[in-house]
Amino acid sequence: MSLEDDGNSARPVNAGVGAKPANAQWGGRFAGGPSAIMQEINASIGFDQVLWRQDLRGSKAHARMLARAGILSGTDETAIRDGLDAIGAEIEAGTFVFETALEDIHMNIEARLSERIGEAGKRLHTARSRNDQVATDFRLWVRDAIDALDRQVASLMLSLAIRAAEHAADPMPGFTHLQTAQPVTFGHHLLAYVEMLSRDRGRLADTRRRLNECPLGSAALAGTSFPIDRALTASLLDFDRPTQNSLDAVSDRDFALEYLSALSIMAVHLSRLAEEIVTWCSAPFGFIRLSDAFTTGSSIMPQKRNPDAAELTRAKTGRIVGALMGLLTVMKGLPLAYAKDMQEDKEPVFQATDASALCLAATEGMVRDLVARTDRMRALAGSGYSTATDLADWLVRVLRLPFRTAHHVTGRLVGRAEARGVELAELSLEEMQAEEPGITAEVFAVLTVDASVASRTSEGGTAPDNVARQASAWIGRLQHPHGAAS
Amino acid sequence: MSLEDDGNSARPVNAGVGAKPANAQWGGRFAGGPSAIMQEINASIGFDQVLWRQDLRGSKAHARMLARAGILSGTDETAIRDGLDAIGAEIEAGTFVFETALEDIHMNIEARLSERIGEAGKRLHTARSRNDQVATDFRLWVRDAIDALDRQVASLMLSLAIRAAEHAADPMPGFTHLQTAQPVTFGHHLLAYVEMLSRDRGRLADTRRRLNECPLGSAALAGTSFPIDRALTASLLDFDRPTQNSLDAVSDRDFALEYLSALSIMAVHLSRLAEEIVTWCSAPFGFIRLSDAFTTGSSIMPQKRNPDAAELTRAKTGRIVGALMGLLTVMKGLPLAYAKDMQEDKEPVFQATDASALCLAATEGMVRDLVARTDRMRALAGSGYSTATDLADWLVRVLRLPFRTAHHVTGRLVGRAEARGVELAELSLEEMQAEEPGITAEVFAVLTVDASVASRTSEGGTAPDNVARQASAWIGRLQHPHGAAS
Amino acid sequence: MSLEDDGNSARPVNAGVGAKPANAQWGGRFAGGPSAIMQEINASIGFDQVLWRQDLRGSKAHARMLARAGILSGTDETAIRDGLDAIGAEIEAGTFVFETALEDIHMNIEARLSERIGEAGKRLHTARSRNDQVATDFRLWVRDAIDALDRQVASLMLSLAIRAAEHAADPMPGFTHLQTAQPVTFGHHLLAYVEMLSRDRGRLADTRRRLNECPLGSAALAGTSFPIDRALTASLLDFDRPTQNSLDAVSDRDFALEYLSALSIMAVHLSRLAEEIVTWCSAPFGFIRLSDAFTTGSSIMPQKRNPDAAELTRAKTGRIVGALMGLLTVMKGLPLAYAKDMQEDKEPVFQATDASALCLAATEGMVRDLVARTDRMRALAGSGYSTATDLADWLVRVLRLPFRTAHHVTGRLVGRAEARGVELAELSLEEMQAEEPGITAEVFAVLTVDASVASRTSEGGTAPDNVARQASAWIGRLQHPHGAAS
Amino acid sequence: MSLEDDGNSARPVNAGVGAKPANAQWGGRFAGGPSAIMQEINASIGFDQVLWRQDLRGSKAHARMLARAGILSGTDETAIRDGLDAIGAEIEAGTFVFETALEDIHMNIEARLSERIGEAGKRLHTARSRNDQVATDFRLWVRDAIDALDRQVASLMLSLAIRAAEHAADPMPGFTHLQTAQPVTFGHHLLAYVEMLSRDRGRLADTRRRLNECPLGSAALAGTSFPIDRALTASLLDFDRPTQNSLDAVSDRDFALEYLSALSIMAVHLSRLAEEIVTWCSAPFGFIRLSDAFTTGSSIMPQKRNPDAAELTRAKTGRIVGALMGLLTVMKGLPLAYAKDMQEDKEPVFQATDASALCLAATEGMVRDLVARTDRMRALAGSGYSTATDLADWLVRVLRLPFRTAHHVTGRLVGRAEARGVELAELSLEEMQAEEPGITAEVFAVLTVDASVASRTSEGGTAPDNVARQASAWIGRLQHPHGAAS
Repeated sequence: MSLEDDGNSARPVNAGVGAKPANAQWGGRFAGGPSAIMQEINASIGFDQVLWRQDLRGSKAHARMLARAGILSGTDETAIRDGLDAIGAEIEAGTFVFETALEDIHMNIEARLSERIGEAGKRLHTARSRNDQVATDFRLWVRDAIDALDRQVASLMLSLAIRAAEHAADPMPGFTHLQTAQPVTFGHHLLAYVEMLSRDRGRLADTRRRLNECPLGSAALAGTSFPIDRALTASLLDFDRPTQNSLDAVSDRDFALEYLSALSIMAVHLSRLAEEIVTWCSAPFGFIRLSDAFTTGSSIMPQKRNPDAAELTRAKTGRIVGALMGLLTVMKGLPLAYAKDMQEDKEPVFQATDASALCLAATEGMVRDLVARTDRMRALAGSGYSTATDLADWLVRVLRLPFRTAHHVTGRLVGRAEARGVELAELSLEEMQAEEPGITAEVFAVLTVDASVASRTSEGGTAPDNVARQASAWIGRLQHPHGAAS
Repeated sequence: MSLEDDGNSARPVNAGVGAKPANAQWGGRFAGGPSAIMQEINASIGFDQVLWRQDLRGSKAHARMLARAGILSGTDETAIRDGLDAIGAEIEAGTFVFETALEDIHMNIEARLSERIGEAGKRLHTARSRNDQVATDFRLWVRDAIDALDRQVASLMLSLAIRAAEHAADPMPGFTHLQTAQPVTFGHHLLAYVEMLSRDRGRLADTRRRLNECPLGSAALAGTSFPIDRALTASLLDFDRPTQNSLDAVSDRDFALEYLSALSIMAVHLSRLAEEIVTWCSAPFGFIRLSDAFTTGSSIMPQKRNPDAAELTRAKTGRIVGALMGLLTVMKGLPLAYAKDMQEDKEPVFQATDASALCLAATEGMVRDLVARTDRMRALAGSGYSTATDLADWLVRVLRLPFRTAHHVTGRLVGRAEARGVELAELSLEEMQAEEPGITAEVFAVLTVDASVASRTSEGGTAPDNVARQASAWIGRLQHPHGAAS
Repeated sequence: MSLEDDGNSARPVNAGVGAKPANAQWGGRFAGGPSAIMQEINASIGFDQVLWRQDLRGSKAHARMLARAGILSGTDETAIRDGLDAIGAEIEAGTFVFETALEDIHMNIEARLSERIGEAGKRLHTARSRNDQVATDFRLWVRDAIDALDRQVASLMLSLAIRAAEHAADPMPGFTHLQTAQPVTFGHHLLAYVEMLSRDRGRLADTRRRLNECPLGSAALAGTSFPIDRALTASLLDFDRPTQNSLDAVSDRDFALEYLSALSIMAVHLSRLAEEIVTWCSAPFGFIRLSDAFTTGSSIMPQKRNPDAAELTRAKTGRIVGALMGLLTVMKGLPLAYAKDMQEDKEPVFQATDASALCLAATEGMVRDLVARTDRMRALAGSGYSTATDLADWLVRVLRLPFRTAHHVTGRLVGRAEARGVELAELSLEEMQAEEPGITAEVFAVLTVDASVASRTSEGGTAPDNVARQASAWIGRLQHPHGAAS
Repeated sequence: MSLEDDGNSARPVNAGVGAKPANAQWGGRFAGGPSAIMQEINASIGFDQVLWRQDLRGSKAHARMLARAGILSGTDETAIRDGLDAIGAEIEAGTFVFETALEDIHMNIEARLSERIGEAGKRLHTARSRNDQVATDFRLWVRDAIDALDRQVASLMLSLAIRAAEHAADPMPGFTHLQTAQPVTFGHHLLAYVEMLSRDRGRLADTRRRLNECPLGSAALAGTSFPIDRALTASLLDFDRPTQNSLDAVSDRDFALEYLSALSIMAVHLSRLAEEIVTWCSAPFGFIRLSDAFTTGSSIMPQKRNPDAAELTRAKTGRIVGALMGLLTVMKGLPLAYAKDMQEDKEPVFQATDASALCLAATEGMVRDLVARTDRMRALAGSGYSTATDLADWLVRVLRLPFRTAHHVTGRLVGRAEARGVELAELSLEEMQAEEPGITAEVFAVLTVDASVASRTSEGGTAPDNVARQASAWIGRLQHPHGAAS
């Protein structure tokens, strides 16, 4: 970002009509002219160096396969493997020099390999191309990212389930349209997010399964005439099988699009919880208190406890959705096979991965630390005629009124209560009977918050027993790895 | 769209400071004032009436379950079922009057039911809410849409595979960067799209499996106190199981987001083929000729054969991606549980479904009808030094040159040929040997298009035998339903 | 949407390998085969008929110009004009029959014209093409839409300003991070939206100005050899001038993209106010009460007053942003000149226009009708140490403490108050002096809500006098048309 | 990106039900626990340090104003100004140490200032807040970016106009639907992009004008009680005026959204030219040859000249559109005033600016260097019945046939020519007269490519004289700064 430098370098182009503008002055950041521009737009080493582990692993598998297939000598393979391991050590030690002139991580590593081991290094690229190589490396990277994120999602789910178990019986107002609707329990509310995250894991697992085919051996686009063993390479890299069409293999980025779709939907989930956390922390709600760790003060208003982590989690949805939109735009209408456009696949994936990991960690942090102000939740849960549905259901269940009729009777009773400025339970039996003579004193038992939540025993309902059971089941599944994925 | 009407109805608002603007004049399309505005923004019957089959089915299942659970009498259930069937007949016959004042399909049908069967109709809504009802209906609709689209995708795959079988051995130039790279076969190119579409089917199937849980019985948001049997309802509606958290069930639209993601990726695939068709039809390429059925003429240039169907297929990607972006925007940051914002979920899904069905049908039509100009493809496949890789590979395979060295030798030979304005095969053996003395006359055998494609026998490579085998395998799988899904 | 119909029409494709799939069975909605598919994907009359007024106007201007230029006889022009007027009358009367086989509104009208007036009708298309015709019609339509929306935005601004004037001195808590920050007035808050909407008008005006060039006469793509007078046509259609490059003129949709961008930003503004309205209506906030006109009840919870209009306004942002993303996707990478892809420009523009008009009307309705619960706002405005900044500023202003030092002192005082569970003003002078000995009793004067807002007299600050002046200025400008645009 | 590290650090969370998960083990990149997570999600210094020049400039203006208003002593102002200049020198010299613990560029600079100059430094933040400070800095940055990009756009326009002047009379096939339509000149085609870019400059200029209001002095959200002079600050920073509502001023990011919209539309333009360049470079088209500077070779196919710069320019549209989508998503539904979500505004703006600058430079490089193969263009311009419209127009002009009739006659003649495999001009006069007896030998004069383009003399048409005049006019305007903006 050195745009400011351009201030003094207005690009004077004084060529006349017909004159070839050979005397171009590029100015500013592109003072180097065409070669500087081309290097900056073309080189990917600035961001694709994060693929180094995957590139080394892929090359070692390729060399092993070439040796087994008799295309490479055993001596060469050993030299290559040792050379690549040494390069890995250099990169880890921070002594490897990445050169932009070598464009990308693949050429950087291969050039260094030839430098280190000579002739054998020049044989490594036999029967492959950068097109299948990058497709392989990137799939490996996304697969690793999925595995790491999946662990984070599972961990967040466990934290949510543990907090849900703790608050399985604590009532809070359940909202629809952000209007008080019916009481629910705070545990039940938290478990709703466990369900969402469980679907997220399912999507990540499906993406992983679908991407887990090995493009290596597709070469530039047409396959190769060398007698390679693609099944072996696939197996060495823990892929389920080789891809089945070389043109498709080098021009496919479905796995990145599907991965970004899965992250986008997950980001929407996290944004919803973040929005709720922000709202719950506001003075009028006051449902929870976040820990100091996840709030900040103000430069001018010392009393503030700003829920920055929640706001940033909410906001990062934009980045992730933008990454998906960006890559869909890149891929739309691209003819086969590989096009350089596809180099624009990596940064959105890297950035969305980082943002997702960060949001998951921040959300887990907030969830673990938050203090629920259950008294405040309970007080609000019982106001605003939140048990009107319980009254209507009682009329149906006990007096056998048709639901729609019961609904109208309840509406009139709420109207009475509202007019008097009282809650439903504060109406007298006589007032109740004025609207529906069949009502008995028994009705008051269903109008309390605790009775309300306790009554919702239908499968998936908010009854504390249900919630405790669900929370416990999730905790069990999540503490035993093989029961975790949906 | 009567915006033009507003021309004469400039909204005069002559309220002064402090005056309550009670004398608002809404003008134009909102002449009816607040109630007209609210009706237009709030009512969904204009678009959600397409859910009628799903709503009837859902209500019948709900009534059956209520009856089995003893919440509804058998007589009432029969009356409800017959009433709903009669309403279905009315809708099919076009005699049902949809009323905007009743807002949506659910209320329209329930109101009509009470009109037809009285009291029993008013009992139908017991133990449910519009929130779980609409979630159920919409899932059923998306599930039906997936099934219909899946059949279309399979059909398009079969058409592609059949054309691929036909052209398994016809060479065409394989492009990377739209530059001639290596010869491939036209059949191989078509099969690349079969692979893509196969992944699309996989994504649709995963979406279907994940959405196939029944929200009915979640009621407004908290579950219900009626002793309902959610497993029964789920089973009657062919769902795999009930959803497990009532708050999540009524506020979840993952299934719509995931469905739109799958359609977006599929649209990208179709846009790539469409782009290729447009390019192939251009005069300079001239690879194919589309049928009259899928081209149009020009109002001013009578000689034109415009590939409109391909262009529109390419363009409709925008609509589908826009639908996904729209719904992600809607759902971002929504607090639980149901919010009216979620009513904006349906039109993007309906429009994206329509566009997808149309694009699949148009693409299949074009694929079936297109005439490949194989002579033209073959001619171009052999120009532009497209067999340079074959030469390099020969140097590696026969002369045991390291790949990188072979690459440089080949580069110099291409340079010679370019300088002389000839193809590689037109260089003399002496010219070849001037760059690499080991070259023998044998090398010319690998420089033909047919030799090139025939040599690519690696798994997934473009060798005609490979392609014929793959095409045949796909045809077999697609003609036998149970082998079709990935 | 007849996807459900496909249930019985599984598309049986029983072609064998090598067989030309001539016996395709399209099934379902595409039973008509290729011609049905092509008609459905290709015809735009279903949505572009809303352009009829613009098409008639454009054709009359074109005929007038042709006659003036001597290309058409006066008699022919009269016949054409009368014929087009008669067609306009037919369309208004609902007697015009739109035929899908004629594809679009342009061909429908021209065909009907020839039917009515014979030979002269066939001369109308001289020196133009559908490419420049549709570009002209669509610009005219967008221009009309901008004018209509601009009136609505101005009207909403006026309503906001009037309500702001009314509440210029009513304090409410000002939030940052949804945490109570400092008191502001409700009028000041409403005027923030007037500023946003004023920028929206500016963007619409700029879009209008930039689009106001006439493409007519660019013909198919290259201009024409007829001696046309483009300046005359432009002038007859109230365009500022003709476009200057025929290739650009027929392939440009910038005006639609820029219009959708302006609508997207406006939608974001309306979504922010909508979000606030939803929050303000919630029980914990209770800042406002919406009118019955813009709320709905619940099918199961009779006490609910759901802010549906606000939620839908918030949600429709998705549709508008989706329309922008869709059209950007369509236009990306399209080669010149006209491509059929561009037919996908209209529906997003029509839908985003409708949604915007609806959201503006609904927002204005809510703003006019809402009842501010000023007591509730005032109570909350004074809690949460909202005047801590006033204390810090007093320390700077009166005691000449550096701001950062004052900030720390204030932080310690808030800490004391929080520990004792009191507000700042409830600390004793001694407690204050324990932190900063210089503090005098005078400080208590700045700790009240009214003192706080009254003190913010900086330009654009929340002092009631400021707010009243601003509101009044806006009302003045908005009630006198020529002062309205920014 | 150290996701790979997580492989060994599966996050073991072994808390049981009810246990507070206090023993959380964050693992991997978040090993530091909550504080590490919070720092990573919260700190913006990693990207907002590019605002340093704007921050220094804003602070100096603020200090000057405070001094003039008597809020700060002259001595303090001098100390602050000198201190800030010294900090600027440190940053330029690379000796300034940015600390993540200080979160952002604003706090880093202020802390360093106090370190350097003591007490006076602590007075700088009087009467402002980070909220108005960051809004000011970011506006200044976007304004600078607009100015720099505007210079680049003007430079690209000039390069295009110079190449257009050179090729004003060189015919190429004009395409619609990528089908040969009518001949145009290559110069005319290039000028279409000059028109597009001219509108881009207009949009950037409008964005600049609208953003050019100064938020400084709005303080946290409510304004300030200090007697500041906002007009002075605005003027010192070259803003046109202060913003008028403090709540709006700190919560507005319209300028970033409008800027990203303008960049997105510009990116679409560049993507269209890039698509054309890629197509023109393909072997079947062969219209142009790119310079070595903007093409690359292949790792496996030495003959390739890949148009990477064009492909990447086309692809970067995705990044820019994604940035717009991302920020729209962030801002949607945000309540007033400042929310931390808005910190996510910067990276999309920075990245889209970088990508735009790069794409403009690369496009200009390609345009300057490309070699047009005018013989190839001319040959294709005359094939494919490209002068059919000229024939139809001749029938109208000379024989006075109604246009639609002439259109049909031409269609039949094209049919005859196609059947015989010849071009129109190769039909005999007798064959012509068989379809329309009035045709004379004179008609052949309009059927040549040169006659066709020469005849398109209508304003904006492709006639070489027109094109040369337009190119010349653009060159004149662009070489004299004040005539450049539209």
